[in-house]
Amino acid sequence: MRILVINPNTTASMTDKIGLAAQQAAASGTDIVAVNPAMGPVSIEGYYDEAFALPGLLQEIARGEAAGADGVVIACFDDTGLDAARALADIPVVGICEAALAAAGMIATRISVVTTLACSVAPISHLVHRYGFAERARVHAADIPVLSLEEPGSNAGALLRAKVREALQADRSDAVVLGCAGMADLARDLSGEFGVPVVDGVAAGVKMIEALAGLGLRTSKAGAYATPISKTYTGVLASFAPDAIVRQ
Amino acid sequence: MRILVINPNTTASMTDKIGLAAQQAAASGTDIVAVNPAMGPVSIEGYYDEAFALPGLLQEIARGEAAGADGVVIACFDDTGLDAARALADIPVVGICEAALAAAGMIATRISVVTTLACSVAPISHLVHRYGFAERARVHAADIPVLSLEEPGSNAGALLRAKVREALQADRSDAVVLGCAGMADLARDLSGEFGVPVVDGVAAGVKMIEALAGLGLRTSKAGAYATPISKTYTGVLASFAPDAIVRQ
Amino acid sequence: MRILVINPNTTASMTDKIGLAAQQAAASGTDIVAVNPAMGPVSIEGYYDEAFALPGLLQEIARGEAAGADGVVIACFDDTGLDAARALADIPVVGICEAALAAAGMIATRISVVTTLACSVAPISHLVHRYGFAERARVHAADIPVLSLEEPGSNAGALLRAKVREALQADRSDAVVLGCAGMADLARDLSGEFGVPVVDGVAAGVKMIEALAGLGLRTSKAGAYATPISKTYTGVLASFAPDAIVRQ
Amino acid sequence: MRILVINPNTTASMTDKIGLAAQQAAASGTDIVAVNPAMGPVSIEGYYDEAFALPGLLQEIARGEAAGADGVVIACFDDTGLDAARALADIPVVGICEAALAAAGMIATRISVVTTLACSVAPISHLVHRYGFAERARVHAADIPVLSLEEPGSNAGALLRAKVREALQADRSDAVVLGCAGMADLARDLSGEFGVPVVDGVAAGVKMIEALAGLGLRTSKAGAYATPISKTYTGVLASFAPDAIVRQ
Amino acid sequence: MRILVINPNTTASMTDKIGLAAQQAAASGTDIVAVNPAMGPVSIEGYYDEAFALPGLLQEIARGEAAGADGVVIACFDDTGLDAARALADIPVVGICEAALAAAGMIATRISVVTTLACSVAPISHLVHRYGFAERARVHAADIPVLSLEEPGSNAGALLRAKVREALQADRSDAVVLGCAGMADLARDLSGEFGVPVVDGVAAGVKMIEALAGLGLRTSKAGAYATPISKTYTGVLASFAPDAIVRQ
Amino acid sequence: MRILVINPNTTASMTDKIGLAAQQAAASGTDIVAVNPAMGPVSIEGYYDEAFALPGLLQEIARGEAAGADGVVIACFDDTGLDAARALADIPVVGICEAALAAAGMIATRISVVTTLACSVAPISHLVHRYGFAERARVHAADIPVLSLEEPGSNAGALLRAKVREALQADRSDAVVLGCAGMADLARDLSGEFGVPVVDGVAAGVKMIEALAGLGLRTSKAGAYATPISKTYTGVLASFAPDAIVRQ
Repeated sequence: MRILVINPNTTASMTDKIGLAAQQAAASGTDIVAVNPAMGPVSIEGYYDEAFALPGLLQEIARGEAAGADGVVIACFDDTGLDAARALADIPVVGICEAALAAAGMIATRISVVTTLACSVAPISHLVHRYGFAERARVHAADIPVLSLEEPGSNAGALLRAKVREALQADRSDAVVLGCAGMADLARDLSGEFGVPVVDGVAAGVKMIEALAGLGLRTSKAGAYATPISKTYTGVLASFAPDAIVRQ
Repeated sequence: MRILVINPNTTASMTDKIGLAAQQAAASGTDIVAVNPAMGPVSIEGYYDEAFALPGLLQEIARGEAAGADGVVIACFDDTGLDAARALADIPVVGICEAALAAAGMIATRISVVTTLACSVAPISHLVHRYGFAERARVHAADIPVLSLEEPGSNAGALLRAKVREALQADRSDAVVLGCAGMADLARDLSGEFGVPVVDGVAAGVKMIEALAGLGLRTSKAGAYATPISKTYTGVLASFAPDAIVRQ
Repeated sequence: MRILVINPNTTASMTDKIGLAAQQAAASGTDIVAVNPAMGPVSIEGYYDEAFALPGLLQEIARGEAAGADGVVIACFDDTGLDAARALADIPVVGICEAALAAAGMIATRISVVTTLACSVAPISHLVHRYGFAERARVHAADIPVLSLEEPGSNAGALLRAKVREALQADRSDAVVLGCAGMADLARDLSGEFGVPVVDGVAAGVKMIEALAGLGLRTSKAGAYATPISKTYTGVLASFAPDAIVRQ
Repeated sequence: MRILVINPNTTASMTDKIGLAAQQAAASGTDIVAVNPAMGPVSIEGYYDEAFALPGLLQEIARGEAAGADGVVIACFDDTGLDAARALADIPVVGICEAALAAAGMIATRISVVTTLACSVAPISHLVHRYGFAERARVHAADIPVLSLEEPGSNAGALLRAKVREALQADRSDAVVLGCAGMADLARDLSGEFGVPVVDGVAAGVKMIEALAGLGLRTSKAGAYATPISKTYTGVLASFAPDAIVRQ
Repeated sequence: MRILVINPNTTASMTDKIGLAAQQAAASGTDIVAVNPAMGPVSIEGYYDEAFALPGLLQEIARGEAAGADGVVIACFDDTGLDAARALADIPVVGICEAALAAAGMIATRISVVTTLACSVAPISHLVHRYGFAERARVHAADIPVLSLEEPGSNAGALLRAKVREALQADRSDAVVLGCAGMADLARDLSGEFGVPVVDGVAAGVKMIEALAGLGLRTSKAGAYATPISKTYTGVLASFAPDAIVRQ
Repeated sequence: MRILVINPNTTASMTDKIGLAAQQAAASGTDIVAVNPAMGPVSIEGYYDEAFALPGLLQEIARGEAAGADGVVIACFDDTGLDAARALADIPVVGICEAALAAAGMIATRISVVTTLACSVAPISHLVHRYGFAERARVHAADIPVLSLEEPGSNAGALLRAKVREALQADRSDAVVLGCAGMADLARDLSGEFGVPVVDGVAAGVKMIEALAGLGLRTSKAGAYATPISKTYTGVLASFAPDAIVRQ
């Protein structure tokens, strides 16, 4: 089985970290292909960045499916472009917010999601509702920039730990979900420190794709994820038209 | 007051029709500037098209705001790119699904939304939930392609009427919302035929922007619509980076 | 366009203040007629007062519509008598809670409503649910009586400011709605102080009526707002019977 | 124990029927006092009638409580004035929609509510939500006027039966609630015919008051049902001011 | 009327206390039969204990109904086995969480539920949702073991009072529900101390059964509470098969 | 990896079929141990049967965990005893309804659940709500007894196909979940016939346990799934006490 793990921003060091986390989670026999788009924002912090991550993200999915991938993990906690990706691809696609909540929901009753920036609380809260966890999960921000997790010597780890502690108490929760792909390497340590399951979305995403692909399930084309209708795209985006994109 | 009305697809004839509907709805003293992107899909039918409408849409918003617009109407019933647009712009931005539901909700108790394609039912139903109308509105598809509304001699009008009749009965609703920007010219006729208010989103969008701008309200920058953080965008999308886009 | 703005309590000084706020919000060409009933409570603080505001309120609506008003704003944050008013009138009617939430919802993601008395929190929370803002808005009380806002020298302003500050932090909200018609003059100042949009319901109500009337929309008579069935009313209320009230 | 059962419309024959149903449901030792206001509409069919039922209804509650009643049943399926009544009275007050749903919810999983007029579907659906039965109950209209149930020879009974049958099948429900005080005498017969529990709100209301009063529970004055604040009421409503009404 | 009140744990001293509370709540003419199973856990603290309370609980219900009981109160705040009990019995069955919430909901707007252990917060919160009180009630734990309420000299009472005070302030609630059958004797005292209605589930359960049985309502057999289908049970549970259990 | 798959009823032929379906879904390297309790009902059709499946089910889980299982699938679509099982076990436990919905939710937008008996619609609908799929999934019954799926020559297959077709149209859904462990062998055929993904819960359950165990996640003991408190169980259930059960 081959799983395409896409970091939708263009920061290669984060792609490497995500790829490593994905590989560690993968079953023997699963190949992880970790990529990031050649175009787009260097990090995704809010709705605007998210919009410009889409073309590169979808291009990578088209390429990956054409090259034989069995499923796709979108490794940004905003689940960037998840619906468009499912319309494009026949193979299953999951977002790491979705995957992490699904996993946490099967081992705990109340979930604290801890993300980076305050401006992500509303979008992630919207995802929490969409995925059916409104009664069970609350979202908190540790107020640290995404890329600070990459910087040696930053106090991002300490801020994150403090927020996890506060969230567990305030929510009376029994599990934590880490709300950023860049936190993938911290889950095991935090679980040991706090005595509760701590779920990393990248690892959860890999296992959910293994599950879906293993079940022989592919994205349904009978509803809102129907294959895009063939049509003309104009201007610099012409090469992304439904018929054009897969040939690249 | 100047209102930018953006048809997010690239079909100029639909832009003209939308511009006309917007002009007819505008107060005296309101200038309507109707545009469409130079790049992107010729129609938006599903999540995939929506993703590729975003760059052109956001570019038009950046240009329009720089040129002095007082507010923006996104004239596609998927409310394409609404969140990203609000992050980008300081001036108020509304989607036509949002505006139409808000207006219908103040004059009726139950609302039937009638859109074009079956594959739009799930995305629009998601918007209905997001905007708080889950208890009051249901979405129906007349099973007609978006651009067929532009073709003389098509039976799109007859199919639409049949679906409106069926929806009013099935939902016991007392108002109709037309779920496509391309239906803007039909609202008055249908209201006369069916004896209920029929709301067109383009007209509703113009009036909501007149209301918000008239109130001196601008998009809040204190939460998830915060101004995009300055950062590098790479590849062919470099010119869309937060700092770059507004200078074009 | 002529908009009837009704203060449903009988305190003329509050009517004057509301009328002024409405006039300042109105478009050029919009006439504001601000009235209050001749009968009923001097302020509306809870469900009991609300019940006795209805006869006078509905009488003013019947008179105003007969005199040619194009729409009605009910200027009490309980949206007193909104459903009965819509059944009575063919012209559009909005409540200021409804209008303020609709406006705030288009420029922000999370909303703090700050009202006067603790006993109003439950009724306004119920309206927040009804209008579909349960996920996005929370209600707070500054614990100040309605009429204290009229008294020079009271500390009502200071209490209100303290509660706004507290609510913004607790809710991580990015907009404020002022939950009382008597606060209409404070919105602009508070917005400057706190750096977030602050929405006054009276102004929002005027703009929503301008929007609805400008769209040619009238209250649907095909559902629960059907014209009241002609029937006998007995006793001192006989003159309010559906057929009788409009002749007064 | 003495229970005040108020028919909020002024039709004495309906009051008699309601009083009889209440008496039949009452425990030995419970006295039923069935009254209707001297002023107001002859039937309550929609929001407008409801508004003008309130003054007379509240006056009867003030009188009844002063005369020693232990609790109040508001015998109109719109639960007319329930919140205002609870603010006014210290003794417990229930509406018949509320009471019937509470009873049905303890003996069945899904509930069909069958009421009279189509224009009541939206208001009663709103009550269904308010009382927490949105997932379990649906509202249907038999399209019969309220007072037709009083007329010998009308086909109201046949229409009602047909709608009950249809609702049970469509909802896959296992209990029926009769959505009008005027149907109080039909519950037993319909239960026998359809083989499911059929709940009449008047009888349910009497038993709920017996339960609440028997528990020594009185309406909480610590929240939104706080005793109305003493204040001036002007005009013909002056005698209804909080301090004035109880002395009549 | 004879009401079977079942303490589903095997601690006879708690059964006595529950029986006394039930007797004090019962109308004259109502006989209370308080029992507990001969088999099962000595207290129910969490899902595991709950599972093993079921066989004994259902056996007592079968015996009680055969002996002529008119209704059943399950006197554990988890509403242990309520659905299975309703499938088994034709007579009405209520749980004390359900009954307490129903009663509190008719006399107050917001409800604080105060229970014993933290591990009960999630299960009781789930019941709060199921019964339709998600918008109105919140659950708190005083962090005291169930049986400590039985021990003279424990500080359980002081901990409970502190939590009630904190919950009323945090929730801005106007009523309290005691979330444990073992607190039945405390309701009256706490109501006096805190000035709000305090509802005990055992007493509420007795009155709800008096209400349902008095209305002639029995559990609907037309839906999910259908009489269990006759079938073989194997092993040590053979004597609990649907046909077998009632003969014991 | 070793996964314990428990058929909670005592019908060995169904256990064999479930075991086969589980084995086919398992990854290479995963051992499936399919068991059923020695005591309890021969099929689970409703709440009563479910109650008596619990002791045997929990005993098998205790035995399986002691013997080294890495996770548990409860193979009954009522997700019988899921909460108690999670309290008992440290290893992860999933129900097949939960697993099937989670999988279907990642490949489709709207889901039709098709189960056997009408009396299961309410309980499964309750699970659909609990797992967060209320907006996306509806439950239908094919009106066939559970064990008829085992009988050669029955028309159960034809009834099931007819209901699947009807449900897909009525719900405008794009995926089907089979709502009974006994349908495990039909998923592939039905998917081919109807052109939509058809999810079998047994297979989905196996893959979800592979995912959770592969992630190193175990049931959280910090909340409502805390290890059962040591205590005495009396009577014939004494051997099921928390400390006793694991030694068997």
